Amino acid sequence: MRGAVLYGPGDVRYDESPDPTIVDPADAIIRMSVTCICGSDLWPYRGLNPTTAPAPMGHEYCGIVEEVGRDVSSITRGQFVIGSFAASDNTCPHCRAGYHSSCAHREWITGAQAPLLRVPMADGTLVATTEVPPADLVPSFLAVSDVLGTGWFAADAANVKPGSVVVVVGDGAVGLLGVLSAKQMGAERIVAMSRHAPRQKLAREFGATDIITHRGDEGVERVMELTKGVGADAVLECVGTQESMMQAIRSARPGGSISYVGIPHGVTLDAAQLFFTHVHLHGGPAPVRRYLPELLQLVQTGSINPGKVFDLELPLEQVAEGYRAMDERRAIKTLLRT
Amino acid sequence: MRGAVLYGPGDVRYDESPDPTIVDPADAIIRMSVTCICGSDLWPYRGLNPTTAPAPMGHEYCGIVEEVGRDVSSITRGQFVIGSFAASDNTCPHCRAGYHSSCAHREWITGAQAPLLRVPMADGTLVATTEVPPADLVPSFLAVSDVLGTGWFAADAANVKPGSVVVVVGDGAVGLLGVLSAKQMGAERIVAMSRHAPRQKLAREFGATDIITHRGDEGVERVMELTKGVGADAVLECVGTQESMMQAIRSARPGGSISYVGIPHGVTLDAAQLFFTHVHLHGGPAPVRRYLPELLQLVQTGSINPGKVFDLELPLEQVAEGYRAMDERRAIKTLLRT
Repeated sequence: MRGAVLYGPGDVRYDESPDPTIVDPADAIIRMSVTCICGSDLWPYRGLNPTTAPAPMGHEYCGIVEEVGRDVSSITRGQFVIGSFAASDNTCPHCRAGYHSSCAHREWITGAQAPLLRVPMADGTLVATTEVPPADLVPSFLAVSDVLGTGWFAADAANVKPGSVVVVVGDGAVGLLGVLSAKQMGAERIVAMSRHAPRQKLAREFGATDIITHRGDEGVERVMELTKGVGADAVLECVGTQESMMQAIRSARPGGSISYVGIPHGVTLDAAQLFFTHVHLHGGPAPVRRYLPELLQLVQTGSINPGKVFDLELPLEQVAEGYRAMDERRAIKTLLRT
Repeated sequence: MRGAVLYGPGDVRYDESPDPTIVDPADAIIRMSVTCICGSDLWPYRGLNPTTAPAPMGHEYCGIVEEVGRDVSSITRGQFVIGSFAASDNTCPHCRAGYHSSCAHREWITGAQAPLLRVPMADGTLVATTEVPPADLVPSFLAVSDVLGTGWFAADAANVKPGSVVVVVGDGAVGLLGVLSAKQMGAERIVAMSRHAPRQKLAREFGATDIITHRGDEGVERVMELTKGVGADAVLECVGTQESMMQAIRSARPGGSISYVGIPHGVTLDAAQLFFTHVHLHGGPAPVRRYLPELLQLVQTGSINPGKVFDLELPLEQVAEGYRAMDERRAIKTLLRT
């Protein structure tokens, strides 16, 4: 088969790679319905994470089960399934506590920007829909796999509750779906920090009540004005830089909550400074598996339409253009048709 | 009057200072029943916080109201009252959210190691008991003012719940009362990290089920052994150094909670490292005022006896010896009789 392989900074190719096979009896092979490019794929693409060997890319997926190993019992051939970027057994103490992305047997999925994908621990990792969904719902199911699951975790980890005042730092796909998630959780006021018109529009559509175009000190000042000097109850940090993290922390009220869901790059926190802000801090790789049943239901019933974050669709062979469009911020998120 | 004044590292004196007076109509003056020395007083005493001018010391207090300003309505002369080290109005949005130590009008109390103390915003800051308590209960009421209130916040901020597995890092008075607090909140297992026999004994008395004498990597290993490789649900970081913070973070399970309640000194956190631990982090100066009514009730009814942390009693004029004894770890906490 051919899929996306990263050779070095800026160099992603539609390249030959061996078809995946059942390696462990708990594996499944799925045939991709659609796949996509993640904001986190841009870190190695931009050279901010080193690439030491050609790396098959992609970790967001949904598709039809093609084959299962002999130990797989709950997932069967022909089902439409969705899984997270973190394969998990769904039975260990960490999974039972809802932290599947810290599963004792966690394996990071990679190579999903391809027609076929091996998924370890299929029974634990994958969730099947009741039937194969119509084509128009598939992008939204794909979004659940990572970007919505991560935005949802961002809102949950920031303790968004009915009536909350929420600030979302970052207008990438995760931030935008953080807006959608906060709305679903009953937030009263949702402030999207964004300076890009198409993203502002989508944020509004997803439930943002206010847009702030300023960053850093000025961004914090605007949040304080909006909240009469109190600060936000919940701040979703969906970028992962020092500036965005500090902006998030300073936008929260004492006792407020910050979630951070993108791998921080070069971010250090002064604990004494954090101490006097009185904030709650919680984040990490989103335990998407915890939320899959609920989120699939919301998509299935048409309650949410997270697939709207895909504003560029390309055939998989044009994956290089997909990366470029996201890197240059011409696209929020690229859907790839296999 | 004469009270404790810090002149520089290691130099605390029982010295003349002017009697406090009503400065603002919301003030009260209280006559100290007993006062004490805090672990945090040792930071400037040890020169780790700079002392630029002679500083009246002490922020833990309980006593009889001597005088009130004309705007004070709920506190009256002759009442026995307790307050926190952070004076607060108890009406601003931060107080209403339970974060009194981030009150919009917060004032840090100082000069409590003296016979008389001015307390700002008396109506907001002070809580009176129904009657003047018997002498044997007074040390426990004093403990509520800071060290129990802080230990209680540590347990609360670490989300201690019935059945929790709790680790307490630090065997100072706050850590020991963190043990007591966790026990009151229904923790099933409480691990005290301590290498000092008298502190271990008190920890057991307060509810510790296990003692770990190791620190750093070895301490973390022991916690992991005790928890079958899972980690603790809640970790109370009651020291404030880089080593203790890292030990706390590494002792928690993914999704577990770390509280930190002593001002961190030179502690920096690598956000990427924190990210992959999946912990909740919450702390700050304890909002003791939030807990005062509940804790005073527990002391009043004899349900808890936090005054046991005072293992040295001295007359106020020997305050210098009180500091020395705590600095040299000869005493857990020194009670001063005025």
